[in-house]
Amino acid sequence: MTLVTPTRLSDGRELIYFDATAQAAALHRDHSAVADTRDLPARGATGDARFDALTGEWVAVAAHRQSRTHLPPADQCPLCPTTAGNLSEIPAPDYEVVVFENRFSSFGPSLGALPADAGWGTTAPAHGRCEVVAFDSAHEGSFGSLAPERARTVIDAWAHRTEALSALDGIRQVFCFENRGADIGVTLLHPHGQIYAYPFIPPRSAVMARAARAHFDATDGRETLLAGMLKAERDSGERMIIEGKHFSAFVPFAARWPLEVHLVPHRQVADLAALTDPERDELTTVYLDLLGRVDRLYSTPTPYIAAWHQAPLDPLLRPASRLHLQLTSPRRAEDKLKFLAGSEAAMGAFINDTTPELVADNLRNAVGTTAKDLP
Amino acid sequence: MTLVTPTRLSDGRELIYFDATAQAAALHRDHSAVADTRDLPARGATGDARFDALTGEWVAVAAHRQSRTHLPPADQCPLCPTTAGNLSEIPAPDYEVVVFENRFSSFGPSLGALPADAGWGTTAPAHGRCEVVAFDSAHEGSFGSLAPERARTVIDAWAHRTEALSALDGIRQVFCFENRGADIGVTLLHPHGQIYAYPFIPPRSAVMARAARAHFDATDGRETLLAGMLKAERDSGERMIIEGKHFSAFVPFAARWPLEVHLVPHRQVADLAALTDPERDELTTVYLDLLGRVDRLYSTPTPYIAAWHQAPLDPLLRPASRLHLQLTSPRRAEDKLKFLAGSEAAMGAFINDTTPELVADNLRNAVGTTAKDLP
Repeated sequence: MTLVTPTRLSDGRELIYFDATAQAAALHRDHSAVADTRDLPARGATGDARFDALTGEWVAVAAHRQSRTHLPPADQCPLCPTTAGNLSEIPAPDYEVVVFENRFSSFGPSLGALPADAGWGTTAPAHGRCEVVAFDSAHEGSFGSLAPERARTVIDAWAHRTEALSALDGIRQVFCFENRGADIGVTLLHPHGQIYAYPFIPPRSAVMARAARAHFDATDGRETLLAGMLKAERDSGERMIIEGKHFSAFVPFAARWPLEVHLVPHRQVADLAALTDPERDELTTVYLDLLGRVDRLYSTPTPYIAAWHQAPLDPLLRPASRLHLQLTSPRRAEDKLKFLAGSEAAMGAFINDTTPELVADNLRNAVGTTAKDLP
Repeated sequence: MTLVTPTRLSDGRELIYFDATAQAAALHRDHSAVADTRDLPARGATGDARFDALTGEWVAVAAHRQSRTHLPPADQCPLCPTTAGNLSEIPAPDYEVVVFENRFSSFGPSLGALPADAGWGTTAPAHGRCEVVAFDSAHEGSFGSLAPERARTVIDAWAHRTEALSALDGIRQVFCFENRGADIGVTLLHPHGQIYAYPFIPPRSAVMARAARAHFDATDGRETLLAGMLKAERDSGERMIIEGKHFSAFVPFAARWPLEVHLVPHRQVADLAALTDPERDELTTVYLDLLGRVDRLYSTPTPYIAAWHQAPLDPLLRPASRLHLQLTSPRRAEDKLKFLAGSEAAMGAFINDTTPELVADNLRNAVGTTAKDLP
């Protein structure tokens, strides 16, 4: 069971400890031991959301983020536990998993609804909330290097935050993700993820949710799109990597990226909060197995984006949408990255230079030790 | 006037010379002087297009492209004129502008329509055509370094190819673009652009074309969306960079990228082929001016994607869509790039770390010499 201890940083931001052990939770409940002694300036105002009439989409303008912390030295890491020489973002001598509001926030701190009648020139506050999830107190690693019990606590933290953020005023989508690797622009090395609570349904979510709803309607509500795709992938087996009791991981039939894996629950669940304890237990095992395979493909850690797609907070779209992870990497060879150039970035038309079946084969075989583990 | 001389490479691919001078055209009409003497292997089969049921979009699977030419040495450049030591893709001792079918093609050479009733598991030939546009015979540079007369010929070549490719069986969208800079994955240094003729309307095009049609309908066909936005930008002036007689360049109100400029014709034209000679003349001047400003922002050449959005070949969408250029750069500071991480890549929700007004101000002031021009 995960123990949850909420507190506040000196500028009013929420910080929440997630502990698997009673000892750690007791420490974090002792306010004198974990008070934020920094005299932080007041939080900045919420940035702007501008309506892009060309596409009907919102764009966040967050000029204050230019000055955000960029690859700080290890002894000044803002995600390490606080020491006398490093008053970090986490005012505790140790922690297991911790979540706090991002100081350089793209959305929020204000909450509310965006205008429904937006057109060219419409600006609104970029309502919402951005949180940081520190996966572990150790400074190096990523989700895949966590001990299973720590990974399990992170999953509980994601579930807790998904439920809490979904209840905030104006939130339409909660998005848990991990960016891994300097190659894709990570600015902090400490193992961490992020959670964005958007005041709109993001464009790609909306596209997927509408396709899911269309399939749901076409089957008179008998099948969700993800259920149909999962069944087809399990029946085929060609692209399957890991098939568990509650989850399956496969390279999707129409993968966009040179490395792309989808991890899908077997049961119809809208989001991480809806997973049962046995499902969370298996997810821990399956996800760590998957990330281990991803890192055995090359001699250096594989950069990736791990994106948890959850059902939008919309009464029409939500029943047809299912939780799933999309893990994508731009690495197309040991020393080559795929760049999003003209066709992908400007037109949204992806060209994949490898086949999903070949990638699945490589991931199925990526077990045990590899060259990098040998002396 | 631009003289057009079509020919074929030894594997059957089309190659077309575009010459402003009669002398150059005469050389290219002399078959014995410009025959392709290479014994190229037959062209590979067309790759696959797979239907992504999650999004309703097509993804090209082009495994044969993994082996494409990657930053070759200058004396083996495939876009330089042919010499005894370098039998390049262009079998002529010199040229002005040349267009040819890409040997490592994501779409084509087959042509035809994709199935309309696609679902999970649908694979079809990736019909279509990909062409390379060599801007000049000199090995280094980019569009912005071209002499005005050469730039003018490139515009004629784009227009010619847009019209010709639009007439091919099954083509739904013709896309002229230039990727500039190794930072965004350019694999050939020789100044060149590309043209993709897609067998579907690419996802971002479709989003823009639908928004344009909705605006057109809402105004009872009195105004296109681009006309309305252009008028608003010209009235405001806050983000205007260059205002000509036929074209205006501005940073869009809801720019997604740290550097983003839209260049829009004042008249309702669907594509580059529809531009008149006076419009093409002014476009040459305005576009070269714009690219000069873009390169004066930093001490090294600015990486960019220059994407010419043209009206889709669709009877409903086409009348509401207007040609425009979207020039975007991921560079957010002298030594920093914006990466598309979780929010942008997975969700399509962009966060811009600067303001469009500040960028417009920088581009308005980016005239004359800068540090890099000084001795």
